[in-house]
Amino acid sequence: MEDLYLGKTNYKVIGQRPIRHDGADKVTGKAIYTADLQLPNMAHGKLIRSPHAHAKIKRIDVSQALAVPGVLAVVTADDFPDLAEKIAMMGEAGAVNLQHLAGNCLAKDKVLYKGHAVAAVAAINTHVAEEAAKKIVVEYEPLPSVTWVLDAMKPDAPILHDDLRTDELGQKGDKPTNVSVHIAFEQGNPAEGFKQAEIIVEREFRTASVHQGYIEPHAAVAMWNEDGRLKIWTATQGSFTCRQQTAELLQIPVSQVLVVPCEIGGGFGGKIAVYLEPVAALLSRKCGRPVKMTMQRAEVFEGTGPTPGSYMRVKLGAKKDGTLVAGEAWLAYDCGAFPGGMIGPGSMCVFSCYDIPHARVDGYDVLNNKPKVQAYRAPGSTQAAFATEQVIDELALQLKLDPIEIRLKNAAKEGTRRVDGPVYPRIGFIETLEAARNSEHWKSPLTGKNRGRGIASGFWFNIGGASSCSASVMEDGTVSLIEGSTDIGGTRTSIAMQLAETLGITSDDVRPQVADTDSVGYTFLTGGSRVTFATGLAAYKLGLDLQAQMRDRAARLWKCSVDEVQVEDGTYSYKDQKLTFKELAAKLAQSALEPVVGRSSVNPEGSTNGFATHIADVEVDPETGKVTILRYTAIQDAGKAIHPSYVEGQMQGGAVQGIGWAMNEEYFFDKNDQMRNASFLDYRMPTCLDVPMIETIIVEVPNPGHPFGVRGVGEAPIVPPPAAMANAIQRATGIRFTDLPMSPPKVWKALQK
Amino acid sequence: MEDLYLGKTNYKVIGQRPIRHDGADKVTGKAIYTADLQLPNMAHGKLIRSPHAHAKIKRIDVSQALAVPGVLAVVTADDFPDLAEKIAMMGEAGAVNLQHLAGNCLAKDKVLYKGHAVAAVAAINTHVAEEAAKKIVVEYEPLPSVTWVLDAMKPDAPILHDDLRTDELGQKGDKPTNVSVHIAFEQGNPAEGFKQAEIIVEREFRTASVHQGYIEPHAAVAMWNEDGRLKIWTATQGSFTCRQQTAELLQIPVSQVLVVPCEIGGGFGGKIAVYLEPVAALLSRKCGRPVKMTMQRAEVFEGTGPTPGSYMRVKLGAKKDGTLVAGEAWLAYDCGAFPGGMIGPGSMCVFSCYDIPHARVDGYDVLNNKPKVQAYRAPGSTQAAFATEQVIDELALQLKLDPIEIRLKNAAKEGTRRVDGPVYPRIGFIETLEAARNSEHWKSPLTGKNRGRGIASGFWFNIGGASSCSASVMEDGTVSLIEGSTDIGGTRTSIAMQLAETLGITSDDVRPQVADTDSVGYTFLTGGSRVTFATGLAAYKLGLDLQAQMRDRAARLWKCSVDEVQVEDGTYSYKDQKLTFKELAAKLAQSALEPVVGRSSVNPEGSTNGFATHIADVEVDPETGKVTILRYTAIQDAGKAIHPSYVEGQMQGGAVQGIGWAMNEEYFFDKNDQMRNASFLDYRMPTCLDVPMIETIIVEVPNPGHPFGVRGVGEAPIVPPPAAMANAIQRATGIRFTDLPMSPPKVWKALQK
Repeated sequence: MEDLYLGKTNYKVIGQRPIRHDGADKVTGKAIYTADLQLPNMAHGKLIRSPHAHAKIKRIDVSQALAVPGVLAVVTADDFPDLAEKIAMMGEAGAVNLQHLAGNCLAKDKVLYKGHAVAAVAAINTHVAEEAAKKIVVEYEPLPSVTWVLDAMKPDAPILHDDLRTDELGQKGDKPTNVSVHIAFEQGNPAEGFKQAEIIVEREFRTASVHQGYIEPHAAVAMWNEDGRLKIWTATQGSFTCRQQTAELLQIPVSQVLVVPCEIGGGFGGKIAVYLEPVAALLSRKCGRPVKMTMQRAEVFEGTGPTPGSYMRVKLGAKKDGTLVAGEAWLAYDCGAFPGGMIGPGSMCVFSCYDIPHARVDGYDVLNNKPKVQAYRAPGSTQAAFATEQVIDELALQLKLDPIEIRLKNAAKEGTRRVDGPVYPRIGFIETLEAARNSEHWKSPLTGKNRGRGIASGFWFNIGGASSCSASVMEDGTVSLIEGSTDIGGTRTSIAMQLAETLGITSDDVRPQVADTDSVGYTFLTGGSRVTFATGLAAYKLGLDLQAQMRDRAARLWKCSVDEVQVEDGTYSYKDQKLTFKELAAKLAQSALEPVVGRSSVNPEGSTNGFATHIADVEVDPETGKVTILRYTAIQDAGKAIHPSYVEGQMQGGAVQGIGWAMNEEYFFDKNDQMRNASFLDYRMPTCLDVPMIETIIVEVPNPGHPFGVRGVGEAPIVPPPAAMANAIQRATGIRFTDLPMSPPKVWKALQK
Repeated sequence: MEDLYLGKTNYKVIGQRPIRHDGADKVTGKAIYTADLQLPNMAHGKLIRSPHAHAKIKRIDVSQALAVPGVLAVVTADDFPDLAEKIAMMGEAGAVNLQHLAGNCLAKDKVLYKGHAVAAVAAINTHVAEEAAKKIVVEYEPLPSVTWVLDAMKPDAPILHDDLRTDELGQKGDKPTNVSVHIAFEQGNPAEGFKQAEIIVEREFRTASVHQGYIEPHAAVAMWNEDGRLKIWTATQGSFTCRQQTAELLQIPVSQVLVVPCEIGGGFGGKIAVYLEPVAALLSRKCGRPVKMTMQRAEVFEGTGPTPGSYMRVKLGAKKDGTLVAGEAWLAYDCGAFPGGMIGPGSMCVFSCYDIPHARVDGYDVLNNKPKVQAYRAPGSTQAAFATEQVIDELALQLKLDPIEIRLKNAAKEGTRRVDGPVYPRIGFIETLEAARNSEHWKSPLTGKNRGRGIASGFWFNIGGASSCSASVMEDGTVSLIEGSTDIGGTRTSIAMQLAETLGITSDDVRPQVADTDSVGYTFLTGGSRVTFATGLAAYKLGLDLQAQMRDRAARLWKCSVDEVQVEDGTYSYKDQKLTFKELAAKLAQSALEPVVGRSSVNPEGSTNGFATHIADVEVDPETGKVTILRYTAIQDAGKAIHPSYVEGQMQGGAVQGIGWAMNEEYFFDKNDQMRNASFLDYRMPTCLDVPMIETIIVEVPNPGHPFGVRGVGEAPIVPPPAAMANAIQRATGIRFTDLPMSPPKVWKALQK
């Protein structure tokens, strides 16, 4: 990694906690979300969805629907162009099979899960659309279905895609299978390694599907004009990836599609794939009007991507002093109805916290009759950590080692080779463990019956990828900042602060705006904990561009050479003349010089790595099985916390989501593989009554690949909680829980034994 | 003027006639205008307006209005901050007295014209707002009023602004007056000049107020949030000038205001000043909601700026061979209710077509009880040309000279000093006259009774000013273009074409977008015929920035130095490797290089000068006084016509507006100084049935201050028509009409004598 780190410490803006730029819009309800949009002559679209978990579509009759007065258009999978064999390269997001992506938007030939969209209708209003949708006749031939990952791997399992073939090494095989990917990583000699082990612990683990549970259901408005230009307003994590997916699904050039990213009410990885956008577009083309589509909450649960359910077997061998010598992991993650699951990162993360000389990981991505999985904050890593961090904990227990000490002894550090290959640059895992050990929380004794303290760590990558910015200096010395990263967690501010720091102005002097795909250079999606890192880097480079121009203008004002103008902390000087950035901007506004307009683009390779360690104190009620969290501390290496409050917010939010996943959340399927809890009443996410204030400790080990040392922080905090909670419950009850969620009935049942 | 002209002739894009980028949006009705906007929780505002032409406001009682259920807020002039003595410097638009600007939005103490806005109410819908507006009680004390400019100059005229003092030289005087400006230009020795004259012609002229008549009434939506940020969607010719006016009227920093320019349904100079924007903002602040305000057509006529009515006296002295030796002009233009009229450009234009060694111009800007005048396409020049071009015509008649010959003999050319000072650089007036003389129209004889052919010329400046652009290269090799110039006449395309030409791609490969004030660098307003010139220059510079980056990326792809990459006609090559712009863009999209994002800004000083010559053939019906236009040709120097169709469109549109002004349009006031024809039924604009196809001849004399030689073309074509029509009618009837409009009753009456 290129060393860009400036090594500065005397920051003026970075490390402060200014009010977020979009704060007022959000708290006063004035922010515009996609569902708020009203366009002239707008039609409303509605999907009909499969009542079966698996069935052949024998016939779709739309004639009665089309006959409903006020109905404008109906579309089915046949309205997509032929996408057979078409693959889209989505940059850091990898290859996407377009036929599968389209098939998830509108089912072709078969429905693969309950809630799978089958057809859509557009009408003059939502009521007519709903009425008409009911009149679309779909004749199904139900097929056997499967939702548990191990069942789906059985030789006699119902097969989702007859054409899918993979053998044991992930190559094209002979027989139909639900295993869409098999990957294997190995380093050293695992068999030999286990022979050196003085203790071996092996456990198996199971996790249920959980949903990201973003507060805003999916919504999109599409307007496809007669000149072929398609304009889309949507809630998306990546306007450019949405643009590319939509363009490729519709087989039109990307430049024919303009995506306007509206405010987004959470995404967590679940708002990357398109669902409504191409369908609304097809309806719009048919009816010649803008078409709005929104989902209900049940549609979000049943029709959009949860995170994989999983079965995992993890085995670790160690010396008696706790030194790890060998590891083996066998992971099967479900990917739902279409290939493209989270087994890749899961396999890369399962041993990523530790230096294990001999290790092997086998990972399987398995199709089953659930909605196609999507990313959910550190996708694949939380499950893996639930496994590994409990096995580590079990080793510590059996070896009577402090659980922090055993982690410190084996912690990955600069130079450690991860099982999938890469060698770590400077990372901060050890520092999070030391911060945990030194924390007031860890030092405070936990006493009382049925109580226990658990600790667990977690890892997540920070990806790089392209980001672009542009800006202009306004007459009052403020700077407008145009960026392409949709702002989910306060990144308008974390990016603006990096620009402000570079220019020597305040965060409030920057007016950040997330622009549409025609108004800003290519910017990869908001995900992979990349935005504050990569788009922040773009903001820094933008600052340098603006600064150079301000210096040029100052030289022309003062009639001296550019080299003679000194710039320090945002003050421009020449001999005894001195102007702050704002003063200079005001002078320029009254001059005949050109406006100062800047731009930048970056594409940092790979980037950096984030580590988190969490401590949980719990009390288990033996009568009900309910687990109360007494205290919870999240510790994380942020590289450099640009806006500590938002870093803390990410740590707290991630921790709470991880706690929900640990304790309550699950897709509950009946015997017909129908989800029975597709509402926020029945699908139990934690509320503020379920968690204490999450304490946070930010560790700062600078990322050498960023001028201010930034590491991404958005994802790592969801990784440790399930393991930390399980480890804590183990201490409270003596029982090791290996299945998620550890909900009261399950805990109560275990306590009865 | 800096010589930027490239002298190229082998253009690939420039000079072509591609379809305009916003064409489909406009013809399919999908373009979003301000009135189309629907925001959540939006309130609707309504103004009440003065029924008197001049009156003191004794009392405003809003209590009954506020009591109407559904009413959210009421504002009056008292809601503006104290703006006494505050002047805003608006760049090329000059100084603006903020108290006057505010006073025109909401009357303070006095109403100065029928239709003057007095108070505004916001309510949950327009019906409630209208109902409540009626319940605002305003107690007036009517005052004597005046609408004819010479009457307003009389010593005993009703005085509009008691504090206004100007003496004969425009300095602060002793007595109250309605003369807000007196300017005088002089060159040579006019008295001496007239002594040398062998013939002197002097005539006086009168013109009525006319309105721009844009098809879209004014509309604005304002949302003032609790954090002080004000967002405005509006139809404006200049988003940045709208931002500045609004910010200064409300006394907040410009960066607190974001202006989103919606599509605009015509402006012609009349959508520069703010009317609704600050009022909607004040209402929004009071009620905490977005507020939409729209005008009815009668409000547009009575409450927004027409062009000045005028009285003019022009005297020219010549030798018998037609050589002009002396000129004198005395011009009084009304400016309506507030200072800031069009006498400045009027005085500069009155003799601007000719080389007159001895000349004097006296110009008066005169307040009267009409709506404050605003710019209307070449503001002030049309009236002046109506005078001068008839006196020239009269000289030609009396000297028995060909009207083109007399113009050619005296035509301004490179080196001619204009009466107000500047010396012309390379201009194309003579070339328009020669084109007229060589035209098939001029060469075709016109025969028949009551028929006549007239010719007249006109001049208008092209201003410079700041423009900024940014752009990014998309994966398919198209380029998104962000600009700040609101597009009234097809400038998205004329600017995109200049970028395309620079890059070696097609016009269709550029996606132009007019952005909000935070999304693009400072760009002065769309006016002064500046956009295709100045923003086009910015597009050219932007192209150079993009090209340099593409070259850098090509060098990095090919692992050679930048200097080794050759660029020609959009093809990048190194040794035997060769990639077109599009191929290179596609390669970059798959590479790990940074996206290509460009930006530019320009601020060309002054700029250039546009000349037009029109030929009109008419037939006058002696029984009705109706004038039928048999044939009409507009000839104009475009410097270089980027998109000839849009240049022709400007020439045709300007000619038709000038014909309307000449023949039918007028504000008709009754004895109480109330406009009696404030609707399109009664205010007679020309329809396609009133004019023949306007023929056009584009002359191209390159502007040395622009790489492609562009001159602005939007305004000059409105200048010649009234004079050309009058000269034609003179030939048809023998009668010289000196008062506008030359409507059938007036013509018929004259024919009876």
